[in-house]
Amino acid sequence: MKIITISRTENFSASHRLYSEKLSAEENENTYGKCANLGGHGHNYTLIVTLKGIPDSKTGMVFSLSELKSIIRREIIDKVDHKNLNSDVPFLKAVIPTAENLASVFFDILDDQLPNNMLQEVRIIETTKNSAAVRRA
Amino acid sequence: MKIITISRTENFSASHRLYSEKLSAEENENTYGKCANLGGHGHNYTLIVTLKGIPDSKTGMVFSLSELKSIIRREIIDKVDHKNLNSDVPFLKAVIPTAENLASVFFDILDDQLPNNMLQEVRIIETTKNSAAVRRA
Amino acid sequence: MKIITISRTENFSASHRLYSEKLSAEENENTYGKCANLGGHGHNYTLIVTLKGIPDSKTGMVFSLSELKSIIRREIIDKVDHKNLNSDVPFLKAVIPTAENLASVFFDILDDQLPNNMLQEVRIIETTKNSAAVRRA
Amino acid sequence: MKIITISRTENFSASHRLYSEKLSAEENENTYGKCANLGGHGHNYTLIVTLKGIPDSKTGMVFSLSELKSIIRREIIDKVDHKNLNSDVPFLKAVIPTAENLASVFFDILDDQLPNNMLQEVRIIETTKNSAAVRRA
Amino acid sequence: MKIITISRTENFSASHRLYSEKLSAEENENTYGKCANLGGHGHNYTLIVTLKGIPDSKTGMVFSLSELKSIIRREIIDKVDHKNLNSDVPFLKAVIPTAENLASVFFDILDDQLPNNMLQEVRIIETTKNSAAVRRA
Amino acid sequence: MKIITISRTENFSASHRLYSEKLSAEENENTYGKCANLGGHGHNYTLIVTLKGIPDSKTGMVFSLSELKSIIRREIIDKVDHKNLNSDVPFLKAVIPTAENLASVFFDILDDQLPNNMLQEVRIIETTKNSAAVRRA
Repeated sequence: MKIITISRTENFSASHRLYSEKLSAEENENTYGKCANLGGHGHNYTLIVTLKGIPDSKTGMVFSLSELKSIIRREIIDKVDHKNLNSDVPFLKAVIPTAENLASVFFDILDDQLPNNMLQEVRIIETTKNSAAVRRA
Repeated sequence: MKIITISRTENFSASHRLYSEKLSAEENENTYGKCANLGGHGHNYTLIVTLKGIPDSKTGMVFSLSELKSIIRREIIDKVDHKNLNSDVPFLKAVIPTAENLASVFFDILDDQLPNNMLQEVRIIETTKNSAAVRRA
Repeated sequence: MKIITISRTENFSASHRLYSEKLSAEENENTYGKCANLGGHGHNYTLIVTLKGIPDSKTGMVFSLSELKSIIRREIIDKVDHKNLNSDVPFLKAVIPTAENLASVFFDILDDQLPNNMLQEVRIIETTKNSAAVRRA
Repeated sequence: MKIITISRTENFSASHRLYSEKLSAEENENTYGKCANLGGHGHNYTLIVTLKGIPDSKTGMVFSLSELKSIIRREIIDKVDHKNLNSDVPFLKAVIPTAENLASVFFDILDDQLPNNMLQEVRIIETTKNSAAVRRA
Repeated sequence: MKIITISRTENFSASHRLYSEKLSAEENENTYGKCANLGGHGHNYTLIVTLKGIPDSKTGMVFSLSELKSIIRREIIDKVDHKNLNSDVPFLKAVIPTAENLASVFFDILDDQLPNNMLQEVRIIETTKNSAAVRRA
Repeated sequence: MKIITISRTENFSASHRLYSEKLSAEENENTYGKCANLGGHGHNYTLIVTLKGIPDSKTGMVFSLSELKSIIRREIIDKVDHKNLNSDVPFLKAVIPTAENLASVFFDILDDQLPNNMLQEVRIIETTKNSAAVRRA
């Protein structure tokens, strides 16, 4: 038995600041270090979305990559690219924008727009050194 | 318990055209868009082959990477590199050359040449944005 | 004195075949090797365009990167992406599509669309191993 | 005659907003588009510093890469990494933080810390598509 | 159910030689080829460490990436960077330094320093073509 | 007037140690730091060779990339790949193997094998952060 997946990569550039209202100023500083800088900082984020399925016998495709691209851009990229993730994005308002939280929120949004159980993984690459992924168990 | 894998990457450059004989001209256009261009287009493909196993106690190797390289080149690269995937490759004659179909056909060919159940995954990277993978379940 | 440049990168995927009408069949084979394959092959090309100038004191920009992107896409990418460079592109009809020839033709086209003497270099990356560049002397 | 250079790459992540006080609100919008977003956005910047010289006959080095790294980190990276380039960096206070302006300001700062005429180029890569460089004429 | 992971990448440069005391000179030559060169050779290694967990509701983090970085540097990088893996590293003394063996030893060392069952995978990228990974089953 | 160049990239993996016989033990330590480690260390080196010329009107090529590849492999790669640069390479015997010295020696060797004045630049990338280049003035 073979498991077949396809992946689509999109990019966005955004600013953010790591800060938790549930922590004191000192705890925020200890927890997030330079990421807690009041004026924020930013990243070129890479978003990789993976779908699982069986290639359609007529088209040879698990899912249309061009449709997947449209969904990712409409639901995610258009709302986060060149934005401040702390203040500009309605669906991130109550979310501390760590890579793992971003991946988790994006997973839920994309899962709603895709055929049942097709979404397999959402990966966020924040820098060449840091990344996070959310995968269907 | 630990699962140990090794991966070998090879590259090839090829042209292809996405077109299905089971679809009308209009359906082909709607399904594949610019990928259906009659004169074709092409990519620098990256092929990543992953094997699973236990490192041999004498050699410290799951499998010889140099032998794996030879198998991949002999069975796949020599037959697809600098070729037209629609017309020049016997084992792709009846295959719509999407990334997921290429990965699936390559998986079967390589699986036949490797020790039983050792092949774990074949990944095809078509562009910096599109890729597909076939994994043993 | 400082020389200031900005660069914009765009990508396209295309097929091509290296073949010269001025050479015999045997000379073509000897000159281009596997690149002369009758069915063609293809690449993910990277195009890097560099402009030279003085940042405008009001905007801090040598030239608008967003306008540069539009010019590159309109004049080059829209005409070569997902195309066969031998047969589908009017301005390449009489051109052997080596990387150096592509860079040279693209240089002339872009030079006509940009302020006088601003275009500094056009670079074409054909694979991770081969590239070419045309630079204003 | 041979010209010999060495290059050192460092990275930083920062937020910024493109906005000019010399332009009206409408002109800012027209000039900078989504880069003018009030809440800002951000990038993972790559900074490449190139020095020109003759390798010392005793050490084989044009300049100590480890000393160059220290100078770049002390003078630039420590002051811009995980910062807001519009508000947090004293030497950027009056500067519109385009890539070409950043490269130009960094060039002057580093030039002051290095042996006479040794600094050859400062390059800023803002995204995989946009970059700028300042070179000694 | 979602599985959430974070990954941290670190780099090191080291020399090594593949040679097994359990093999004859001829077998070593046949097994390792040019990797058995008596004077050794070397690589820029990339080490990717992946942890699995649930983001903490107060911090939004599976684990502090800054603490993970400290652990990786203290336990691994400081001991292998700019070293000879055959002779300079106590915990590799009895180990043939193939990528799969390195990943396996590093996995055990890091697993001891991290919360129970949190370490998910250790990946070693030896060249752009060869890599190995050890994953918790 | 346009200047046209083509570039070919090749890779090699080697070990080295930075140490100068003209320096005392203490000076070596101060000059080279961890690079002076007695057991050596190593890198995946990238070598980029650039030629300048006019594309031939019959072939569209400045120089055959396949011939250039053969020359680079025969003269350089075959002699340094999977070697110890301090002890295994005759033409590096009296050379401190810094990136700038390697680039300079390789430049002279390749220049002898290529048409007069065609070799424009030899670039050595030692790590993602350090590189050196030698260019014809």
